[in-house]
Amino acid sequence: MRVDGREQLQLRPIHIDSNYLMHPEGSVLISVGNTKVICTASIEDRVPHFMRGEGKGWITAEYSMLPRATETRNIRESSKGKVSGRTMEIQRLIGRALRAIVDLEVLGEKTVWIDCDVIQADGGTRTASITGAFVAMALALNSYAAKKSFSKFPITDYLAATSVGILQNNETVLDLNYAEDSKAQVDMNVVMTGNGEFVELQGTGEEATFSYDQLQGLLHAAQEGIVELFEQQKAALGEEITKKIDSRRKK
Amino acid sequence: MRVDGREQLQLRPIHIDSNYLMHPEGSVLISVGNTKVICTASIEDRVPHFMRGEGKGWITAEYSMLPRATETRNIRESSKGKVSGRTMEIQRLIGRALRAIVDLEVLGEKTVWIDCDVIQADGGTRTASITGAFVAMALALNSYAAKKSFSKFPITDYLAATSVGILQNNETVLDLNYAEDSKAQVDMNVVMTGNGEFVELQGTGEEATFSYDQLQGLLHAAQEGIVELFEQQKAALGEEITKKIDSRRKK
Amino acid sequence: MRVDGREQLQLRPIHIDSNYLMHPEGSVLISVGNTKVICTASIEDRVPHFMRGEGKGWITAEYSMLPRATETRNIRESSKGKVSGRTMEIQRLIGRALRAIVDLEVLGEKTVWIDCDVIQADGGTRTASITGAFVAMALALNSYAAKKSFSKFPITDYLAATSVGILQNNETVLDLNYAEDSKAQVDMNVVMTGNGEFVELQGTGEEATFSYDQLQGLLHAAQEGIVELFEQQKAALGEEITKKIDSRRKK
Amino acid sequence: MRVDGREQLQLRPIHIDSNYLMHPEGSVLISVGNTKVICTASIEDRVPHFMRGEGKGWITAEYSMLPRATETRNIRESSKGKVSGRTMEIQRLIGRALRAIVDLEVLGEKTVWIDCDVIQADGGTRTASITGAFVAMALALNSYAAKKSFSKFPITDYLAATSVGILQNNETVLDLNYAEDSKAQVDMNVVMTGNGEFVELQGTGEEATFSYDQLQGLLHAAQEGIVELFEQQKAALGEEITKKIDSRRKK
Amino acid sequence: MRVDGREQLQLRPIHIDSNYLMHPEGSVLISVGNTKVICTASIEDRVPHFMRGEGKGWITAEYSMLPRATETRNIRESSKGKVSGRTMEIQRLIGRALRAIVDLEVLGEKTVWIDCDVIQADGGTRTASITGAFVAMALALNSYAAKKSFSKFPITDYLAATSVGILQNNETVLDLNYAEDSKAQVDMNVVMTGNGEFVELQGTGEEATFSYDQLQGLLHAAQEGIVELFEQQKAALGEEITKKIDSRRKK
Amino acid sequence: MRVDGREQLQLRPIHIDSNYLMHPEGSVLISVGNTKVICTASIEDRVPHFMRGEGKGWITAEYSMLPRATETRNIRESSKGKVSGRTMEIQRLIGRALRAIVDLEVLGEKTVWIDCDVIQADGGTRTASITGAFVAMALALNSYAAKKSFSKFPITDYLAATSVGILQNNETVLDLNYAEDSKAQVDMNVVMTGNGEFVELQGTGEEATFSYDQLQGLLHAAQEGIVELFEQQKAALGEEITKKIDSRRKK
Repeated sequence: MRVDGREQLQLRPIHIDSNYLMHPEGSVLISVGNTKVICTASIEDRVPHFMRGEGKGWITAEYSMLPRATETRNIRESSKGKVSGRTMEIQRLIGRALRAIVDLEVLGEKTVWIDCDVIQADGGTRTASITGAFVAMALALNSYAAKKSFSKFPITDYLAATSVGILQNNETVLDLNYAEDSKAQVDMNVVMTGNGEFVELQGTGEEATFSYDQLQGLLHAAQEGIVELFEQQKAALGEEITKKIDSRRKK
Repeated sequence: MRVDGREQLQLRPIHIDSNYLMHPEGSVLISVGNTKVICTASIEDRVPHFMRGEGKGWITAEYSMLPRATETRNIRESSKGKVSGRTMEIQRLIGRALRAIVDLEVLGEKTVWIDCDVIQADGGTRTASITGAFVAMALALNSYAAKKSFSKFPITDYLAATSVGILQNNETVLDLNYAEDSKAQVDMNVVMTGNGEFVELQGTGEEATFSYDQLQGLLHAAQEGIVELFEQQKAALGEEITKKIDSRRKK
Repeated sequence: MRVDGREQLQLRPIHIDSNYLMHPEGSVLISVGNTKVICTASIEDRVPHFMRGEGKGWITAEYSMLPRATETRNIRESSKGKVSGRTMEIQRLIGRALRAIVDLEVLGEKTVWIDCDVIQADGGTRTASITGAFVAMALALNSYAAKKSFSKFPITDYLAATSVGILQNNETVLDLNYAEDSKAQVDMNVVMTGNGEFVELQGTGEEATFSYDQLQGLLHAAQEGIVELFEQQKAALGEEITKKIDSRRKK
Repeated sequence: MRVDGREQLQLRPIHIDSNYLMHPEGSVLISVGNTKVICTASIEDRVPHFMRGEGKGWITAEYSMLPRATETRNIRESSKGKVSGRTMEIQRLIGRALRAIVDLEVLGEKTVWIDCDVIQADGGTRTASITGAFVAMALALNSYAAKKSFSKFPITDYLAATSVGILQNNETVLDLNYAEDSKAQVDMNVVMTGNGEFVELQGTGEEATFSYDQLQGLLHAAQEGIVELFEQQKAALGEEITKKIDSRRKK
Repeated sequence: MRVDGREQLQLRPIHIDSNYLMHPEGSVLISVGNTKVICTASIEDRVPHFMRGEGKGWITAEYSMLPRATETRNIRESSKGKVSGRTMEIQRLIGRALRAIVDLEVLGEKTVWIDCDVIQADGGTRTASITGAFVAMALALNSYAAKKSFSKFPITDYLAATSVGILQNNETVLDLNYAEDSKAQVDMNVVMTGNGEFVELQGTGEEATFSYDQLQGLLHAAQEGIVELFEQQKAALGEEITKKIDSRRKK
Repeated sequence: MRVDGREQLQLRPIHIDSNYLMHPEGSVLISVGNTKVICTASIEDRVPHFMRGEGKGWITAEYSMLPRATETRNIRESSKGKVSGRTMEIQRLIGRALRAIVDLEVLGEKTVWIDCDVIQADGGTRTASITGAFVAMALALNSYAAKKSFSKFPITDYLAATSVGILQNNETVLDLNYAEDSKAQVDMNVVMTGNGEFVELQGTGEEATFSYDQLQGLLHAAQEGIVELFEQQKAALGEEITKKIDSRRKK
């Protein structure tokens, strides 16, 4: 039994509150246990300089935490005047992951800006951000499509992420909260698509290592959890958008 | 009648959701119409370098907007690597205003960090921040006092803020929303205490000027609105804290 | 009697040295008692990006202090690599105030750059900057008009500023020097036009508050002082420019 | 057959030139094909602020490229005034990987600074950096031990890294050069220890995904290559240091 | 005859206005023709970190131009957030030059901060800064000595600087104004002491070169000019300080 | 006899390894004793903004040291977020020196980017950089000419640099190593062309001064050394390029 009473392969309760804000084209407030992230998607009718004229779209992400999202107050990155390495790593990951399930040619010369702002942190903020950002982006592209239609819906599959890890007692667990994460030997973030393929796999021994067999256990746990996340995403998106995505999925 | 159907001297609906977050010593989500701000108060057991050894406390504030708090996406200040003049002006204002109703000697060598993060903006974000930050600070000092008691409660009066202005049609109005604010001739922010005194008055003609008589009308409107805000703050704080503040107020 | 022997509502001696520098289109060295500021106005034949194509001009200001303008040496903002909140607040105020008395449509797509560099500080540097910058700008626009005429003179009224405050002994005084300002309970900066209207009003209790009646006393004191400043500005500008401004004033 | 004539699971030629520079405690010039990196290790007798008093050491890494390490000139990060997200990601990876095979308690309150400067880039610069940095660090700790002995040798196992990937033709290959890497569907960096365990696994689909079976193929390829790298590291370190490391390895 | 009517080896008119400002320990306004620089010297009772405990003093300089010191407005370095290479070069030169004629051991663990702010530029701003800064520093050390006496006067000789150059017509001239400087083939700044020795020599061909014989002509011209500058400095310092410096000069 | 056994006017051993890197148009690894610098030259088909449309080329240089080029590790300028004054001074010197021997009109609207990266430092890094950068630039312009011919070869003469100084024992020496340089009274960097003219002369007393006669000795020493450097450059460039340069030299 885990510190919060969960089973080894049990996710925390998930809530996805769609269209949480009035201004963005798409937005959600996602809660994964006590971790809460506001994810928004904004669509801009141009691409970065290095991509102009290629006829393809771009997806980029920014990630931040409120100063008191955490136990002790963090100094704002705007006050420090620079973005930390951790933040950069996370925002690069979010953007890269989402690009794997968007048909950038159908999107055309547009940029989707994803903003993930953690208002309360209890472990797994980067995976919650990906899971929530997927929904915000689908909402935004659907509402954009209502005004200026795409040749097809530009999202080609579902996308969700979770963390798995090996605790100090050598147990493999799914969806670590902060208390577990800060003491785990091995921590792995897994991003998968609806068809069961990997988009991103980042496994790290924290002053520790892991064997080939342990890796297989971690991958299995992640797959269990991500399947549940897809159900939550579908419920948050509603039938119309779900159908549009399903129509584009590889069989 | 105003663009959203309000009377000239009518506030928008106010909601103050106390203890909104799990980690901060005090926090609220304040809504003033569609403007929504998360205000947190954090207590640190030391003061900035320039105040050490004086036996007095300090209150400082930071203010930020999520990129999509607004109609079009704003570039994050952390990405730009510097804080804008507008942001600095607002955070200096919030800190200064709160210091006027805290007994810094009773507080002792502690810093209260106020963070105001606008998640949705529709005009009046700086005054909503002050009104909400007051509640978050009172909650934080009350919970801190439960652990390490103060000689007296360090808050000496209520504090709230609102905006007033003169529209293009020369009408004086209370609590401008964004549509009104962006076209107003004169914009004034007023911060007052529970005993009816001014803490801060910032009136600005926007490529326009205002007469002595117009000024009197603006001050009157502000007083009307702020009295209502105090009632909302008291409800959000509850009877115990309200009593503690009342015990310190000047008659 | 005040620390320097002045009456409550007496300004310090004012000197405005016109065309102080050889390169700028307009420049003054203004002294308000021991406070000395070099104000220059530069005219650029284009407007910032966000205003292009609107046919209107823009006025923007920068403010700085020499490191030894003050009692103890200040670190240069160029060495720190960023501009302080106080500086930003002041330069935004100067620009906003001047825009209130310029007909930006007559100006056309030009930017007036105002630079206020304090070479010696003894209180009231921001109000001295506004009073001096007005003269520098009028000189610059007059000399520019000599080359490329405007349809009318673009300045529509006089503009000057002063500070008023409430000292620790509860006396309301005009034009505080540094010794007074650093101990005042209330500090208010007032910017007015030649026709007696307000452009900007910024009143602040320094860990203190002020009543409605005290506010009226402060406003009265400011009006007394500003009338005298207009006389000094007219003398510094000379008859030709004074006439041009008078021809545009509202009766 | 690959673009440079190699077999699918064949590494490029490796050279490790030990003690390449006169000043650092440990240094190498490592070549992996045309990729060339100068790796140095510097030992400082203190740890970062957040670790003081714990009796443990720290390892931190910095990574950079010369402007013409690449086909077209890159702007220096010192000129841009900030370090890119890619650089931060790589230097965090190098430090984290090395910490997995150092006994930080035996090291004591010291910091090992690793600097990896790419002088010529042809793919695989981050994995070449890890492989080379391991040797530089072992040389540095050995020479430091000669002056102030450790209770045991602080390195507990070998550590090397390589990249594997899936090309556009669906072939799984080992040690991608730049031409291959820039077109690969999937790119994975693998860091392993001498006992065959994983330290870090970072697999990324580039606008693509990969299946569970493909993952197994990638892991197999990486293991093949890393075993060869250990032989090169042992040759570069010499018998004395090799023995010291062997004495600390888990059986 | 030169553009402004001077002889080849004739300086522009020099004025040194001592104790120009009220706050600094020493200050001057120096004019060399139309070039005007405010030089101040501030004494701080400690040295930079890297010099603590050596019992020696330090002298450091900062240099800046007002935005409209020049024909067209320059962007402030504080707005750009960084100091230009030209500025750094000049401030390093000023500090280094002054250190050559101060007995840093007699000075003791104090820092002399020199600030040179150009309010009007017409060529030769760096050499005018050195010549003026010498006077400001001597005034500051003399007034400091009045409070806390030194074992001897810490200044060991006079120090002044001028520029020499070769114009497009191959004439060697002394003290170039901006019109001359911007077209000169060769530009040389020379800093000398009262006993006729060199402290600093910086000769630069501007897309041109100069022969050994031309160099001798330049050195001769500089010596002519600097002798006159010493007379101006002595007049500005007055008899008392002049005697103190004379008592320390090498015969 | 000097600390490393050299005669007073003896250079350290020089090696210039041409075309050291695969990507740049021109590159060398130059060693002057233990000082080692990688110099590259990159040609870009446009000029900086301020030079567009003049039909002339531009040459600009950047200089950096690896963190462990020196005895103790230096913090990277990219980590500090700004370039030091020393670095700026050196890179401005390198660019200016090279521009003196390039016919910028023949070059046309192109920029030559010079990068000098010191991998090991033992004194004289700026003069080694100039000597090496000349060779890298000549290689680059020759290889560029092979593709798009110039009307003439754009290099008009040889260019090399060395340092000279006066040691504590009053001896004048050529090509100071770090041990000598750090204790020298006078340090002078001299840049000369193949026809024996000066391009740049920077002599500095380090808390010391130098006489006219000492200056003549320093200039003589520099001339001796630079003649030898030209021989090394010619050998590194080969006969073809040497001929092209010779054809453009002034007799």
